[in-house]
Amino acid sequence: MGPQTAGTDDTSLGEEIVGRIETLAAISETPGHLTRIYLTPEHRAAADLLLSWMGEAGMDAHLDAAGNVCGRYEADHPGLPCLMLGSHYDTVRDAGKWDGPLGLITAISCVANLNRRKIRLPFAIEVTGFADEEGVRFASTLLGSRAVAGTFDMAVLDGRDHHGIALRDALLQFGLDPGRIGTAARSPNELHAYVELHIEQGPVLEQENLPVGVVTAISGATRLAVVLTGMAGHAGTVPMALRRDALAGAAECIVAIEALCQGIPGLVGTVGRIEALPGATNVIPGRASFTIDLRASSDGCRKDAVADIVGRIEAIAGRRKLTAEICTMHENRNAPCAPWLMTHVADAIAAEGYRTFELPSGAGHDGMAMIDVTDVAMLFVRCRGGISHNPAEHVDLADVEAGARVLLRLIENFRPRYTTDRG
Amino acid sequence: MGPQTAGTDDTSLGEEIVGRIETLAAISETPGHLTRIYLTPEHRAAADLLLSWMGEAGMDAHLDAAGNVCGRYEADHPGLPCLMLGSHYDTVRDAGKWDGPLGLITAISCVANLNRRKIRLPFAIEVTGFADEEGVRFASTLLGSRAVAGTFDMAVLDGRDHHGIALRDALLQFGLDPGRIGTAARSPNELHAYVELHIEQGPVLEQENLPVGVVTAISGATRLAVVLTGMAGHAGTVPMALRRDALAGAAECIVAIEALCQGIPGLVGTVGRIEALPGATNVIPGRASFTIDLRASSDGCRKDAVADIVGRIEAIAGRRKLTAEICTMHENRNAPCAPWLMTHVADAIAAEGYRTFELPSGAGHDGMAMIDVTDVAMLFVRCRGGISHNPAEHVDLADVEAGARVLLRLIENFRPRYTTDRG
Repeated sequence: MGPQTAGTDDTSLGEEIVGRIETLAAISETPGHLTRIYLTPEHRAAADLLLSWMGEAGMDAHLDAAGNVCGRYEADHPGLPCLMLGSHYDTVRDAGKWDGPLGLITAISCVANLNRRKIRLPFAIEVTGFADEEGVRFASTLLGSRAVAGTFDMAVLDGRDHHGIALRDALLQFGLDPGRIGTAARSPNELHAYVELHIEQGPVLEQENLPVGVVTAISGATRLAVVLTGMAGHAGTVPMALRRDALAGAAECIVAIEALCQGIPGLVGTVGRIEALPGATNVIPGRASFTIDLRASSDGCRKDAVADIVGRIEAIAGRRKLTAEICTMHENRNAPCAPWLMTHVADAIAAEGYRTFELPSGAGHDGMAMIDVTDVAMLFVRCRGGISHNPAEHVDLADVEAGARVLLRLIENFRPRYTTDRG
Repeated sequence: MGPQTAGTDDTSLGEEIVGRIETLAAISETPGHLTRIYLTPEHRAAADLLLSWMGEAGMDAHLDAAGNVCGRYEADHPGLPCLMLGSHYDTVRDAGKWDGPLGLITAISCVANLNRRKIRLPFAIEVTGFADEEGVRFASTLLGSRAVAGTFDMAVLDGRDHHGIALRDALLQFGLDPGRIGTAARSPNELHAYVELHIEQGPVLEQENLPVGVVTAISGATRLAVVLTGMAGHAGTVPMALRRDALAGAAECIVAIEALCQGIPGLVGTVGRIEALPGATNVIPGRASFTIDLRASSDGCRKDAVADIVGRIEAIAGRRKLTAEICTMHENRNAPCAPWLMTHVADAIAAEGYRTFELPSGAGHDGMAMIDVTDVAMLFVRCRGGISHNPAEHVDLADVEAGARVLLRLIENFRPRYTTDRG
């Protein structure tokens, strides 16, 4: 298939999207700093605005039982399965404007473009604004997409936020019925696929000088908590050879973790938190604790790395006469993007004239939940400096436009898996 | 000189000393936890008790203008220069009983022993209980011994504790006249030497299976504060090769500091505090700060080590594209013990039948100030596990006895430097 011009009408997709990004970003817990947490009044206000934009785009829109914003643009025949697009509309605290909303608003604008051009396709398009991807409030991420995928854990309803409010009660206060969460679940035969556009949140596309990239997988992650215990002592009186310095041991572990990860393509490892106790300038640390976040685009690679790192920590601790406690705080399996959908994404990128480039997503996304109900793919858009979860998060207008045109191209050229004729 | 039995009378020095250690330890800010801070009511109560013990030991005793407890046991002729003994009677918070009081109480008990035996020597003996060695209250250590050495910095009178009380006012509340601090200063010609018995606060004597040791010097110390700045980023999205991880850089520095210190005898280096920011499990640290405490028994060795470490940190930072800010928070020169006095200490140890063993003091002591007015020496006594500044600090009765007998032997055999005939 040669390049063709998708979605030509007089409206600039990019300008509309950026304008809406700004409008949505103004709906925040604190003026001037973007914070929009699940089931808060500002979360509700954002949902209402999104529903209105969906309606203007020609969609039937409603809020589902988990607080997801759901819009449906009918196929050329009513009731057909859909291509689902979307992203999330909750944010972290003091967030950037683009993480989540870019994908959601771009999807709405693409549908609006089709609607303006009166184009109906042989499949429905649904746009979902997932209610809770970040998991800031209830210490459990992906609550919105898990409800849609039918994997919502009802036990989470009893989880409480830091004010002591249970999720169950927060849903009621928002105007939702926690007993009806199950109605948000979608059946696999209603969906052809789930495709999400999202900012990269990393520096790779910038490094490659590309506005967009094809995601290969949402990397699985393992988080470990490590505590090394040695013997505290006076910084002046204990000779080096008699020390059991827990922080020196931790430092050796951190260097080893970094070296291991540098040697294995696709693996990243981060020690983000560290504490040395008692924590005085003139006292040898008797205890050091740190976290390890490991991600890889293959579960085997990640599991091998975890085993290797645990072994190295134990060896370092043994040699230094430290005790090591290592516990797994969190583990997420790899969520591979479906090859046939990746081909759709790559073809749309090529059709818009860009080099196709594949990269894993080290960050988590709603696709990790959606993969339980349908095939998933992701289109990454370059963000400045790889900065995210930060007010400095930024996407250039040209890249917003590029991402939107690729997504629109993908929609227009989309064929469900079993009807695709790609010869 | 062959072994001889020093100070034989019917009193066990060790039991008297341990009894008084317990009595003094009961005078505390908080019952059950020993805290006795400079110029507090409990500090005053301890001073009064020490003055009474000095009086019972046959000394003229008074409180000087800095709050030091001063006792003088006259020579065989009145008015002769003295051998000064002593240690401090303030404590850290939640302290052990032995750090300070052991040396002070042992000195008083040795004088009491001489007094019981009606022995007068051709020099006076003075015992000084220094009022503020730990420097807990006014962020300046050695206030008591600096007043005695004539190096008290009057600017410190305006320093305030964490309640906002100036040292000047605390002295007034204690019943002292800050304008008379200068009267605490002693003249070099009043003193033959200053000798202090103190617990080791480290594990070396225990490792050597010895109750006592000869201190070679009070190690000089340099404290550095280091801040490395890189770039924070998402733990999942930034490939290893594009990272500027400040904590990984700090870890490499800590490993390098340890390796350097392990390779140079007499040098110890400690990283006691570390912080990584922003400090989240899933965020690459953009900033890491840590402290370095370096001590050596020669100033040249310490200064070379500081220069070497600064060079290594800068090289590590440069290679990792981090910026490094390194500042010196604190610097104390080395205080060498006088060789002629060390010989007195070693001879007394040998005379009591122990192997003589030399070690540096990595911890600071009042001798660091006293060296400005007279020659200094120190006798270390073994403490259990090297533990100090901790309620678990402990000295066995047998070691208390050994230390006391060595000190008594030293006093009885002492000859001032220019009258010694050691042929």
